Amino acid sequence: MKKCYFFTLFLQKNTDLDILHYQQEFLEYLKSKNWIQEPKNLYEPVDYILQLGGKRIRPVLTLMAADIFSSDYKKALPAALSIEVFHNFTLVHDDIMDDAPLRRGKATVHEKWDINTGILSGDAMLILAYQYFENYEPIVFQKLAKLFSKTALEVCDGQQLDVDFETRNDVTIDEYINMIRLKTSVLVAAALKMGAIVAETEDKNANLIYDFGLNLGLAFQLQDDYLDTFGNPETFGKQIGGDIIENKKTFLYLKALEVSNERDQQKLKFFYKQKLEENSIKITEVTRIFELNDIPDLIKEQIEKYTERAFDTLSKMDISEDDKRNLKDFGLWLMNRTV
Amino acid sequence: MKKCYFFTLFLQKNTDLDILHYQQEFLEYLKSKNWIQEPKNLYEPVDYILQLGGKRIRPVLTLMAADIFSSDYKKALPAALSIEVFHNFTLVHDDIMDDAPLRRGKATVHEKWDINTGILSGDAMLILAYQYFENYEPIVFQKLAKLFSKTALEVCDGQQLDVDFETRNDVTIDEYINMIRLKTSVLVAAALKMGAIVAETEDKNANLIYDFGLNLGLAFQLQDDYLDTFGNPETFGKQIGGDIIENKKTFLYLKALEVSNERDQQKLKFFYKQKLEENSIKITEVTRIFELNDIPDLIKEQIEKYTERAFDTLSKMDISEDDKRNLKDFGLWLMNRTV
Repeated sequence: MKKCYFFTLFLQKNTDLDILHYQQEFLEYLKSKNWIQEPKNLYEPVDYILQLGGKRIRPVLTLMAADIFSSDYKKALPAALSIEVFHNFTLVHDDIMDDAPLRRGKATVHEKWDINTGILSGDAMLILAYQYFENYEPIVFQKLAKLFSKTALEVCDGQQLDVDFETRNDVTIDEYINMIRLKTSVLVAAALKMGAIVAETEDKNANLIYDFGLNLGLAFQLQDDYLDTFGNPETFGKQIGGDIIENKKTFLYLKALEVSNERDQQKLKFFYKQKLEENSIKITEVTRIFELNDIPDLIKEQIEKYTERAFDTLSKMDISEDDKRNLKDFGLWLMNRTV
Repeated sequence: MKKCYFFTLFLQKNTDLDILHYQQEFLEYLKSKNWIQEPKNLYEPVDYILQLGGKRIRPVLTLMAADIFSSDYKKALPAALSIEVFHNFTLVHDDIMDDAPLRRGKATVHEKWDINTGILSGDAMLILAYQYFENYEPIVFQKLAKLFSKTALEVCDGQQLDVDFETRNDVTIDEYINMIRLKTSVLVAAALKMGAIVAETEDKNANLIYDFGLNLGLAFQLQDDYLDTFGNPETFGKQIGGDIIENKKTFLYLKALEVSNERDQQKLKFFYKQKLEENSIKITEVTRIFELNDIPDLIKEQIEKYTERAFDTLSKMDISEDDKRNLKDFGLWLMNRTV
């Protein structure tokens, strides 16, 4: 599963939006909850995964949106917690499915306990995520729960598509975009919209901030694909070429198959069948095919397209120019990472 | 996990409550749903498990309760579906945890597909179960979703306790009763209460029918424990002695440990450490210890106690004498199975 690394730098550099303040507030709220109830074997893993760290970006987005649309963003803390607990539920179950031993440098839940514990504690987290909405009165509750169910099911759809794509050889670019939309972007979009729902702003604004998050999420994920091959090893934070090593059919690969000549297509398909111990030649060769076929420019066009779409939604929102600038700064910072 | 077999006969014999009619109505509603959406690998297992059959008793209870408290029980169909989808979600995930190859004589989901499919399709079913509540307006929606979350979390708690008890040697009777309450009874109780919530009856009635279901569920589960050892092999429907073979620490075992002398206690503990190919001697010996220590009478006392508690709640309900009699008939039929 793709990870979100960009937020780390954002949190350090962009203080206009007071992100660190939201993060701090959320962490205190998280700490105030007593996770470990009886039966302990069910709830200790919940506490464990929630304390593993991470930038808490999804809940921060919920608080940020609530702050833009209301005078009391703290009302959004339960919704923010719901999003974070759901996100961690997906990590617990995905780690089982991926047979991943490590998460944030520590043992995954199913490694530290066992698979059955991972399944059942994950199930409990999905239910807990719904329970936090009970802090809101019925109309807000229903809006949040509806958006949450829709989003959660989309994330499952995205995860299934990602699995399906591993064994398919006819994945189209549109299908790929749809997969990353479902697997990654809808949760970022929903996190923002939940803040807007709690703030009881107009539906128009809530839908616009959703679209803002959705498009920015897509732009980011495509940028992550780009940086995975063409990023600066010193600032990217992950191993360059990781997607190539794992034969991930990202935008780069799919676009190259689409636009390259038969010979390059055969080469790419050949390389993407290999699981190697030593990958430097594979990475060099595949990267060269991408470059020869102008894939870096083609993906940048897409990143710009989705970023522009995100910014276009801002101009339509009934919020102050300051808030628009802050949201745009957020987006700009995000896209500056490519340079 | 314990199964509910008693309903089969009930459905055949007791026609006063028009159970077959509710069942038919539910099956038509279930059929009207198009389960198999994209991605197919996610939703085909959902369709598969929901079509495997079963008596659909939990949804029938929802419809029955809605019929008692309102003039249009069909309004309760989405809530009934939610309960059934949730129940089937627990089967899919429990079957993974138990490594069970068969469910209702057919391959379990993780056997027919794989464990990852079982996990992800199960997750989707839990979310789908919440989505059916979206058919109701906000206040009813919130009441249903709150009851559902509470119940679903209790079922997880019960499942975890059942797992924990396998490796514990100090389980008390009270702990056991609490485990079966959580793992089995709360869902029967919630199924009835959901019908009452959809019918928008007073909270008092909704709570009383919940208590009715909870106590009847406990009485039934204890009766199932009794019949597993002392039932008539021709009518029970499961292998007599199954719990003894599997070293299940049911009420019979725990009570025997509590009341028997040191020698019998040692014998019981010895037998419950064995996993044997040939179990006839073990079953005979353990059954004899139960009988010598009056365990059959002691468990019957408990069954009667919970049945009486269930019936007591009926007298407090604001419903017609006909409806009370029907609910009592349901309970009496259930308890008659012991004779």
